[in-house]
Amino acid sequence: MMFNSFGRIFRFTTWGESHGPALGVVVDGCPPGIALTEADIQPWLDKRKPGQSRHTTQRREPDEVKILSGVFEGKTTGTPISMMIENVDQRSKDYGDIAEKYRPGHADYTYDQKYGFRDYRGGGRSSARETAARVAAGAVARKVIEGVGILGHVVEIGGDRVERFAAHTLGDNDFWCADPDAATRWEVLLDSVRKSGSSVGAVVEVFASGVPAGWGSPLYAKLDGELAAAMMSINAVKGVEIGDGFAAARLRGEDNADRMRPGAGAGDPPVFDTNHAGGVMGGISTGQDVVCRIALKPTSSILTPVQTITRYGEAVEVMTKGRHDPCVGIRAVPVAEAMMACVLADAFLMHRAQVG
Amino acid sequence: MMFNSFGRIFRFTTWGESHGPALGVVVDGCPPGIALTEADIQPWLDKRKPGQSRHTTQRREPDEVKILSGVFEGKTTGTPISMMIENVDQRSKDYGDIAEKYRPGHADYTYDQKYGFRDYRGGGRSSARETAARVAAGAVARKVIEGVGILGHVVEIGGDRVERFAAHTLGDNDFWCADPDAATRWEVLLDSVRKSGSSVGAVVEVFASGVPAGWGSPLYAKLDGELAAAMMSINAVKGVEIGDGFAAARLRGEDNADRMRPGAGAGDPPVFDTNHAGGVMGGISTGQDVVCRIALKPTSSILTPVQTITRYGEAVEVMTKGRHDPCVGIRAVPVAEAMMACVLADAFLMHRAQVG
Amino acid sequence: MMFNSFGRIFRFTTWGESHGPALGVVVDGCPPGIALTEADIQPWLDKRKPGQSRHTTQRREPDEVKILSGVFEGKTTGTPISMMIENVDQRSKDYGDIAEKYRPGHADYTYDQKYGFRDYRGGGRSSARETAARVAAGAVARKVIEGVGILGHVVEIGGDRVERFAAHTLGDNDFWCADPDAATRWEVLLDSVRKSGSSVGAVVEVFASGVPAGWGSPLYAKLDGELAAAMMSINAVKGVEIGDGFAAARLRGEDNADRMRPGAGAGDPPVFDTNHAGGVMGGISTGQDVVCRIALKPTSSILTPVQTITRYGEAVEVMTKGRHDPCVGIRAVPVAEAMMACVLADAFLMHRAQVG
Amino acid sequence: MMFNSFGRIFRFTTWGESHGPALGVVVDGCPPGIALTEADIQPWLDKRKPGQSRHTTQRREPDEVKILSGVFEGKTTGTPISMMIENVDQRSKDYGDIAEKYRPGHADYTYDQKYGFRDYRGGGRSSARETAARVAAGAVARKVIEGVGILGHVVEIGGDRVERFAAHTLGDNDFWCADPDAATRWEVLLDSVRKSGSSVGAVVEVFASGVPAGWGSPLYAKLDGELAAAMMSINAVKGVEIGDGFAAARLRGEDNADRMRPGAGAGDPPVFDTNHAGGVMGGISTGQDVVCRIALKPTSSILTPVQTITRYGEAVEVMTKGRHDPCVGIRAVPVAEAMMACVLADAFLMHRAQVG
Repeated sequence: MMFNSFGRIFRFTTWGESHGPALGVVVDGCPPGIALTEADIQPWLDKRKPGQSRHTTQRREPDEVKILSGVFEGKTTGTPISMMIENVDQRSKDYGDIAEKYRPGHADYTYDQKYGFRDYRGGGRSSARETAARVAAGAVARKVIEGVGILGHVVEIGGDRVERFAAHTLGDNDFWCADPDAATRWEVLLDSVRKSGSSVGAVVEVFASGVPAGWGSPLYAKLDGELAAAMMSINAVKGVEIGDGFAAARLRGEDNADRMRPGAGAGDPPVFDTNHAGGVMGGISTGQDVVCRIALKPTSSILTPVQTITRYGEAVEVMTKGRHDPCVGIRAVPVAEAMMACVLADAFLMHRAQVG
Repeated sequence: MMFNSFGRIFRFTTWGESHGPALGVVVDGCPPGIALTEADIQPWLDKRKPGQSRHTTQRREPDEVKILSGVFEGKTTGTPISMMIENVDQRSKDYGDIAEKYRPGHADYTYDQKYGFRDYRGGGRSSARETAARVAAGAVARKVIEGVGILGHVVEIGGDRVERFAAHTLGDNDFWCADPDAATRWEVLLDSVRKSGSSVGAVVEVFASGVPAGWGSPLYAKLDGELAAAMMSINAVKGVEIGDGFAAARLRGEDNADRMRPGAGAGDPPVFDTNHAGGVMGGISTGQDVVCRIALKPTSSILTPVQTITRYGEAVEVMTKGRHDPCVGIRAVPVAEAMMACVLADAFLMHRAQVG
Repeated sequence: MMFNSFGRIFRFTTWGESHGPALGVVVDGCPPGIALTEADIQPWLDKRKPGQSRHTTQRREPDEVKILSGVFEGKTTGTPISMMIENVDQRSKDYGDIAEKYRPGHADYTYDQKYGFRDYRGGGRSSARETAARVAAGAVARKVIEGVGILGHVVEIGGDRVERFAAHTLGDNDFWCADPDAATRWEVLLDSVRKSGSSVGAVVEVFASGVPAGWGSPLYAKLDGELAAAMMSINAVKGVEIGDGFAAARLRGEDNADRMRPGAGAGDPPVFDTNHAGGVMGGISTGQDVVCRIALKPTSSILTPVQTITRYGEAVEVMTKGRHDPCVGIRAVPVAEAMMACVLADAFLMHRAQVG
Repeated sequence: MMFNSFGRIFRFTTWGESHGPALGVVVDGCPPGIALTEADIQPWLDKRKPGQSRHTTQRREPDEVKILSGVFEGKTTGTPISMMIENVDQRSKDYGDIAEKYRPGHADYTYDQKYGFRDYRGGGRSSARETAARVAAGAVARKVIEGVGILGHVVEIGGDRVERFAAHTLGDNDFWCADPDAATRWEVLLDSVRKSGSSVGAVVEVFASGVPAGWGSPLYAKLDGELAAAMMSINAVKGVEIGDGFAAARLRGEDNADRMRPGAGAGDPPVFDTNHAGGVMGGISTGQDVVCRIALKPTSSILTPVQTITRYGEAVEVMTKGRHDPCVGIRAVPVAEAMMACVLADAFLMHRAQVG
């Protein structure tokens, strides 16, 4: 029932606000005997951390993770793994404006409505800074399912979609983009967006290879259901697709069927001609790649003044000053990867519980 | 952790297979003192039940619900509400084919991979018959949040989309379609699809009006996260959107902002100019309509022979004989409504726990 | 969070009232491929069912269990197992008295305080009839941990304690008593108690043999913590002990230490000289017998008029007419066995999840 | 399902080992708007902290708590409250002995059996140091149920029981003893026990006053069931009683009945003549004091050499050197209080969810 926990057996709990002293995560249910040090986690945090290009927020955070428990002599012990990341760049500024005015598209109004008041510094708990904690959890999850490879990339920014997938080019641009041509176009687009103080949305795709058939627990812990919950919990996500997703709704049954053929050798898994299903059938993995896409709205932090109200109900205009992400979809890539890793680690442990 | 339960406080557990003697649901956590009889539940089951038009499966099930516990003198007592629906039309037939052959797009292969064997009669547990139990749970949920109205309708079949929303026409066609012109087109389309033994996908929209601001529990019990999990758990669903969903990824920040103005009178809630967010901000309801759309794939039960393998790994062809739904999206409408009702009832009780 | 569910992976949900049409249980999380029919469950229900001797309530219930789902061709499928037991002997009577008067020691007053009203027929949901559902769940649990033997027996009635444990005599008396001398004394005692319309308490011991070392999940799913919760949830239980329990509080450290010696052969588990700990250390099983004892209060249904109040706050006297159990401890034996079986099955599956 | 979490709505997760850098707790589900600073928590930690008299372990820990999240401008925000306590006195020593030898009565053997290896430094996760985290959680819980008073005291040490309850004398001795005569006797006893390197057990009683009627959720979240789980999770606890507990098993029904009379004025709650039930009936609070007692075994850390085996299966003797608690029951008092506070805060929030 915990509001700030995710997962069933491999289960993490995050804590911390944007401008508090630190944020962190406790991972419970991680099996014992897995080699784990900070060096397994830091690279994923580095991938997510802000300020790495001009296309993301200029907040400067080293995001150095410390493991505080659950590891002994370099191996997990089966006890809770507590990890902490200190907040460093809580730039002092006057929050008076945000404290009083509700920024459209932010959680300002809803938090106040729910809780009666809120920690308004930098968005408080609803800040994307919380996702650093998820990335740390995801790094542990990756170790639990070591044979599984998880990769995310941006497939669309501002409505401009990639046309090919050249995995080796992912690192050549600032966008986790596997299409060099699109990357070139996006650079121009994002420079313009940033200069105009606007923002754009994005679509991110994550897939996992090496997942064996059989993971996922019908009916309410289906692999796709868990993925949907995981992805929709990420800031700014407004849509989730598995496999062909919404496009599947436009196919005929015979075109959507993933035909099967016997595997090459005896004991080999079957071969599927296609993967419309995105690697999940009846909530259970098929052995194909698990494929998921998420839609991220344009961030609401823009330099254009927008009409809104204060917490006292008065009409005003509000404008976000200072640092912001012109396209939050870019930094969502490692977060979405982390969430998929956690879902799969959890599905793996559930499967092990059920069938040994 | 229960695999077959959904919800946190308002929590239901379903049981039953397509061709077992009965199916049912236990609703736990329903508050006491709510008027409830079978008459509150039956109409929703009638809305879902098969065989109501030539456009849905011809299986004939009365789907009569019996309340077995949790109600005394016409009111809920706060104890578990057990409801049962008997299976009547388990048409006797030879399952040999399905027992041995994996139908592409069905859960046959994955259930076998997970569990080692499966109840293959009519799809067993993965059959859409299970959704009758959800509809019963949803009927109870509606009573818990009595001021909230929930309505679902089909917005797209086979890629053909509605162009307007005339709520009063919903009952005039067999498709829960609020656009009479689209309904006319769909009738032609579905007759053709049915005759050719094919199937088409659909997009369904559900919205809830009357939800006050403040429901939903960040971060991992966000209202939109719960909705995503709920909707993705429905058979054949491959995508979920909240508000503008994937279209939001193509908007600029200033176009996606839902501007706020003071309410008309003192104490009135604010007025939003738009509802791109679909009534959820930071995982918490804004007081606007909660809007959700789901994509359903074309059912895999088609009369075209499709290449596949047997459970012994041999190449074969398989074809679904007998009754099937040419478009499962139609009967998904009351199911999606029920799931939204359950999510909202749960969010309401969680909210009450947290803030009194 | 479900109020009427117990367990984490092997998890059951019970429903039903004393005088409703039926009661039942849904077992979720049972592994697939386990042979299971009604014949595996009925004997345990027969052991619990009322009216088997003059020392227990004279309500006549066949308590015939029906499996409604989750089993196919005689084996569990991994899907929810729904079991139902019809209520037959809901003797028609005037409940006016109980409806208005709060019986001391019953849940009448507290249910009314909590829920505003209650199903007063035969105690409603707080009736011991609910325990039949647990016994059915326990029968399934026993199949999950087939190598483990679970046995309960009464060790004390009305303060008169057994002096020896002759397991083979358990079936020779009406009390699940392993000391024939005590059984003889108890027969006299209970006849006198019954005739005077009074009641007596009891202490029941349950132990499990064959549990391997390693089951139990620290810190809040410790094996002994789970047992304590399980046992305290049984009607009339007011105390729980593991191993020496309260007597351990009177020992010195050196007398309480369970000394260890190497096992006889290579690879054999160690030998413990004693089992003060009751087979659990740090919340994890040691490989010794798991031993648990519970204290049951005398039932509050007595023929002596007792001073109380009505639901309108007026002073009155109340007396329980009709059928009652002079010593509820006797029929608690199969229930306590069932709860231990469920706790162990759950601990086994959790262990499997964590360490494979 | 989290192994290291406790509670349903008011839910805490502890982490940390005896000799790691720190330990802590994340409290989730705490309502917003509650005044909370470190000053609300520190006094309870001070009550528990080691080294306060010669009768408890000489480990010196300041146990200073830091709040890292969830509080803004001195009030809880409804987001997770993370609290951390640094370990200071991790006295460097040679653990070789404990690393290899299994100390009888400790969790050494069982952790190794479960996890394959363990953090042996100071008992690792199974150390009583973890209870500091619970005390911090309990301090928050007390604020949630501000009208409720919770008090624990030692009622028995080494089999020597108190004879009266003089609450005002509790602070006059080192034992949380409300009977000055017993306190004098215990001082002599414990000096002798400590000098001989032995240890003794204890019985602790905790009660809560001011709990209204109606808290507790039948059947598997009964107030007494939750208390039993909470108490049994504390290190060294081997038995739990509610109200008269095991003594109730020796009473007749008429002697165990808590007779009720109308309250003094209109609208006053009823008056109970006795409280055999310990304030809980049918799992729901009656409005009387909630009374619970726990039995703690003598600590297994004694200076007497005890026969055991190594992790390689060889017969050896083991002896605990250095700091130890001759009677762990004393320092268990604030821990048991904290657990009761957490159970009651959780029951309060659950009640609020169910009935508003």
